[in-house]
Amino acid sequence: MKELKEAIRTRGKAINKDILLVDSFLNHQVDPMLMHGVGEAFADHFKDMNVERVLTIESSGIAPAAFTAYKLGVPLVIMKKQTSKIMTGNLIQTGVRSFTKGTEYQLTVKRDFLPENSRVLFIDDFLASGEAAFGAINLVREAKAELCGIGIVVEKSFQSGRGRLDELGIPILSLARVKSMGPDGIEFME
Amino acid sequence: MKELKEAIRTRGKAINKDILLVDSFLNHQVDPMLMHGVGEAFADHFKDMNVERVLTIESSGIAPAAFTAYKLGVPLVIMKKQTSKIMTGNLIQTGVRSFTKGTEYQLTVKRDFLPENSRVLFIDDFLASGEAAFGAINLVREAKAELCGIGIVVEKSFQSGRGRLDELGIPILSLARVKSMGPDGIEFME
Repeated sequence: MKELKEAIRTRGKAINKDILLVDSFLNHQVDPMLMHGVGEAFADHFKDMNVERVLTIESSGIAPAAFTAYKLGVPLVIMKKQTSKIMTGNLIQTGVRSFTKGTEYQLTVKRDFLPENSRVLFIDDFLASGEAAFGAINLVREAKAELCGIGIVVEKSFQSGRGRLDELGIPILSLARVKSMGPDGIEFME
Repeated sequence: MKELKEAIRTRGKAINKDILLVDSFLNHQVDPMLMHGVGEAFADHFKDMNVERVLTIESSGIAPAAFTAYKLGVPLVIMKKQTSKIMTGNLIQTGVRSFTKGTEYQLTVKRDFLPENSRVLFIDDFLASGEAAFGAINLVREAKAELCGIGIVVEKSFQSGRGRLDELGIPILSLARVKSMGPDGIEFME
């Protein structure tokens, strides 16, 4: 997606060869016009997959996933990193390790919101080592729903996540695939 | 907002006289068509206020705030409840007590994303005791920005938040004002 790569180039910042800072338009300050375009791109790509739920992880996935769900006309389901005392009922959980934050957390979703056999599109802001995506895959499997696609805003293609996900044979669309980052700038795969 | 009140009546659940569960369309599973309407309602109401930033709190405020920011054509700024090791620079923080979760947390925002004198519209999913809103007010004040309006999706009018905010003289729009809840159903203010 051209506008996204342009935003990464001009408004993103490679802190080192591993960490890409996109907090001015993606995950702290959010450019809603760009996220609307991101949602359109995902919805258009997956429009013939009979998607019934868009699934994401709080909180950076919510903005792109909300526009995607709106364009597809289906509910958005947010996997929670924290539970609250009013979150009760039949819950599904799985553990995930965060690469960026250096912590572990539990992902939680109410079983009611991922009905058995429902067709689920997982959307997230980043794909790096793939831990969050594998957490989503575990929850969808536990719910006996069907993961029919994965949409990633920014993929760090030099990390292991994409390769690990490709092995599962689930259709993946990454709107920007970062090949490498360094003092000379950010290079994309295509 | 008629569709929102209808959703609260038919899809919400009063767990007791204080706690309203709206996790099937607002903060766990999200109805993106309804949130789009919510964003339109806020954008229309505040369209002449020269809003330059929409501000919200992760994570339940993000979906309604993203559609509001999109409709107003301005950036969305998300106050973070958790920081990460890549969140550095000039940060502003304030402490907030969560009524629902029974915990305290720090709200953090990068100063760059709330420029001095910028006109800020704060959007949140709930107004109860007003603690989150006062956290936002503190951060906006610390940033020397100007809070020009507050948009709330669901206000529990029987709690103290609305009264406390009204005293500040900041324009507030609550799209659903819940007067009372109980075994006989949910009553609205108007």
